Parts: sequence; structure tokens; C-alpha cells
Amino acid sequence: MNEPELWFTERQTQNLSIGLRVAATLHTEQTPYQSLAVYDTVEYGRLLVLDGCVMTTDADEFVYHEMMTHVPLHTHPQPRSVLVVGGGDGGVVREVLKHPSVERVVLAEIDERVVAVAKEFFPAIAQGLNDPRVELQMGDGIRYVQDHPDEFDVILVDSTDPVGPAVGLFQEPFYQSIYRALKADGLMVAQSESPFANKQIVHDVFHIAKRVFPQAFLYLASVPTYPTGLWSFTLGTKKYHPLQDVSDLRLQQTRYYTGDVHKAAFALPAFVRQHIQE
Amino acid sequence: MNEPELWFTERQTQNLSIGLRVAATLHTEQTPYQSLAVYDTVEYGRLLVLDGCVMTTDADEFVYHEMMTHVPLHTHPQPRSVLVVGGGDGGVVREVLKHPSVERVVLAEIDERVVAVAKEFFPAIAQGLNDPRVELQMGDGIRYVQDHPDEFDVILVDSTDPVGPAVGLFQEPFYQSIYRALKADGLMVAQSESPFANKQIVHDVFHIAKRVFPQAFLYLASVPTYPTGLWSFTLGTKKYHPLQDVSDLRLQQTRYYTGDVHKAAFALPAFVRQHIQE
Repeated sequence: MNEPELWFTERQTQNLSIGLRVAATLHTEQTPYQSLAVYDTVEYGRLLVLDGCVMTTDADEFVYHEMMTHVPLHTHPQPRSVLVVGGGDGGVVREVLKHPSVERVVLAEIDERVVAVAKEFFPAIAQGLNDPRVELQMGDGIRYVQDHPDEFDVILVDSTDPVGPAVGLFQEPFYQSIYRALKADGLMVAQSESPFANKQIVHDVFHIAKRVFPQAFLYLASVPTYPTGLWSFTLGTKKYHPLQDVSDLRLQQTRYYTGDVHKAAFALPAFVRQHIQE
Repeated sequence: MNEPELWFTERQTQNLSIGLRVAATLHTEQTPYQSLAVYDTVEYGRLLVLDGCVMTTDADEFVYHEMMTHVPLHTHPQPRSVLVVGGGDGGVVREVLKHPSVERVVLAEIDERVVAVAKEFFPAIAQGLNDPRVELQMGDGIRYVQDHPDEFDVILVDSTDPVGPAVGLFQEPFYQSIYRALKADGLMVAQSESPFANKQIVHDVFHIAKRVFPQAFLYLASVPTYPTGLWSFTLGTKKYHPLQDVSDLRLQQTRYYTGDVHKAAFALPAFVRQHIQE
């Protein structure tokens, strides 16, 4: 009478794992860049996995996508032109499109299979990808950024972990290119891993942003399926201050982000504040 | 050449698990109330397990213990007499003792084996238990609260999950007793589980506190080894407001809590705010 149990397990570090019970395997493939899988999990709905790591789930994708997007887009008074590097699932693009000032969103994703699979298996996440304001650029995001100086109000780096195709997205030359690709009052946000599990990455990305931009900030959000459940974002800005220049909120259709959450996300736990000051 | 791998696994829900690689099993026993185990984990140091659930680890205990304690103790202008229900590991007591106004801390713990094991295997967490201001009351915390009306400035409910001996700690009669055990300007905090994984408990404890106290609040902290990594605390208060009445900070020896974190912890994600308003 015992049903067999199928579990997806991610070894988040060598010594820490998360397990999600799987109702069905919906898709697996090896793309030119990475392994890709889609599972239907009992706890969190559909799960997108790249190279064995949780990318997003139906249940908690809203946290990461809202917090990567709405913090910088509310900091800029009138974001018109936005570049998303990575983020082939479309979740960040969907959130960007909620801002009425946005006229153009470029998605620079290296792996077109991620986009195709997202459209098939995650329609609620990928819904914005067919919007006429969206331009899909399938190819190397690093090169795209290099080739488009002075073009964007906001750049969002929605990368995988710093292994495989994403290594360059955690290195200083990329952020120098981002600086040049931004307009004179532009700003950027990059996902920068967990302050509990990935201290060195958090530290390094923050200090790169601090060297490249006049001002850099770290902020946090709670993403249950990412290692330790606490995730960091690094914000680099040429002009606008994410706590002083935030205008009235332009949208209400969010499940995590609010005006108060925006401010609270910058209140770093003592150990995180100390760590990035070192 | 492959070393065998030993993993502690907690099934946090029926369909969600966390795994911690174990270097050594240090202690296991069945107490009169629950199973108790201590492991040395590679990722998080020593791990205390009750009835199969992570209670605390060396690496992240500071978050939970600081946030349960310093938010209410900074809200009260002069906490002298504090009761901790549960919390036999001593972590909350240790944090309470950092407040110089505190003259008396009662720890009402039902399972004396938790206290003994904490003293042996978690000396840094249990360090406060031998302080002369601390009074250990081994027995039923519910009865202790009933029998001590009008006695405490702050009561902290550091319970296990609502199964086994802790069920009564999530029910309204217990909070009515807490109300009576508090002085006329007292306040209380109870751990109230994860807003992602335990929505009904978060909702129920908050609404119990709202019925029993003139004012109730929910606040959050990031505890990596608890389900979903995001944990809630319910604060019920007779008089002082946790955002308006917070005085200058009295201490600096914290690793998570700061004055800004205190305020930010009450900035609830939209879905949590909506959930507890329902």
C-alpha cells in the first residue's frame, strides 16, 4: 500500500541540502549550456532546475522577481529602458512591465531553451515575454552589455550561481560594462547569493559594485527555496538613492514588495552589515 | 576511497525536507517528553534535535534567540522580571541577561533533560543558566503561568512546534493566563512558526493575541535551519508599542538585532500582512 516517494534533492553546499517531494517529472534535457529540468512538486508547485540548482518555483517565485525589480524601478523616477541579463524564465520581465513608464525591456539570455521551457511549463511566470515592449536577445549577456553603451535606465542581473556560463557575471569587468551601458542617472541590481551560505560572493559583488559605482547598497529578501532562505541583492547607482529618492508606489499588484518592505530590506542584520564593511 | 556520508534529515512538512551532513552523533535519548539528539554537523556546528525537528544550531541560534528577546525587551522601558516558557537550551535567557535592568529571569521548562543536555553540549548557548538572577522551574509552563498572576514585565514563549507537550502553548487559554501573569504594562512574545509553511498557525496565534491583548503585532526574522528560513514572532502588549516606544538601544553585543532590524522586522511582506488581516 506504500506509494513510492520521489524527491528532488539539491545539495546547496557540500553539507546542506533541500528536498522537495516530486509528483511528476515534466521535462528534462541537456541544453548547449546546462542541464534543465522541470518537476511538479507537492509543496511548491512547478520547479525549474538548472544544473541541479533550484531556479524558481510557482510558490515562491514572486519574492525574488518582485524584489529584484521593484526596488530599483521605484528608485528611478522614470524608468523607460530596462535590460535584464539572464532571467530567461521571464519573471523579472513580467515585474518590469508593471511599471507604466517602461517603453522597452531587453532580455539578454544565453540559453534560448530556458525561454522556451518557461513559456511551455511556467506560463504565469513567462507571460510578459510576448509583450510588444519586450525584445529577446538570445546570446551572451556580457557581450550585449559591452555593445550597448549609454542605453539603459536600469539593468537587472538575474543570473544563475557563479558556475558554468554565469561566472563572468560575478566579475568586475562585467560591472564596468554595466556602468557604461547605463545612462548618466542609471542604476543596476544583481542577485548576489546568501549572506549565510555564500559570504565571499556577497562580499565580493558588493565591493565590486562599490568600486564601479558612486554608491552601492545591499538588500535582502526571504526566498524559501534558495540556500538558507535569505537572499541578497546588490544595487549600484550613479545618482538616485534607494532610500531617499523613492517616490510614491506606482503599483499594488505585488505579493511581497510594499513601500515598507522596500525600506526594511536595507536594514541589514548586524553580521551582514559588518561583513560587507570588512 | 569514498567516506560514508551521514545526513540528518528533517521532513519539515510531508513534502519538504532539509538535510545537514553529520560529522558525529554526540548524544541521543528518549526523555519522558520527547526524543532528544545532538549531532555535530559540518555546515552549522552542533545541532539540537527534539522529536526529529531542528531546535537550534551553533551557527544560526543567534538569530532566533536575539529576535525573540531584544524586540520585546527594548519595547519595555525597564524590564525587571522576565519569564521564559520553554527555551530549556538557555539561549533566550542568555539574551535576556544582557539587559542591565533585569533582576530576575524564570525559566519554566517541562523537560529537565533539555537543560542538562544544553549545559553539556551547548555551553555557549546555556551559559546564562547558572547566573544568580536565573530561577529554573522544571515543570509545566502552563501551570506556572496560571499560578503567578501580576508578576512579570515580559513573558517569552520559546516553544517547540505545536505537537506533543507544546500543543497547549498555541491555545487561547494559555494566552489569557499570560495576560494575567503580566503586570499592568507587560508584554509577551511567542514564536509562531513560518508564514510560508504554517499559515494557519501564524494566523491563529496572531488572532489569539489580538483577542487577548489590546494590541498585537507580527514580526519576522531569517532562521536558515527552520522551515522556509523565515520565522514569525507574535507580540502582545498591554501598553507599550514596539515601534513607537522603543528607547535607545541598551546593548551592542548582538549579531543579528540592531535598532534598524527591530523596525524592519515589522515590515511584513504583502502576502503576510494580508493573511493575518483575514
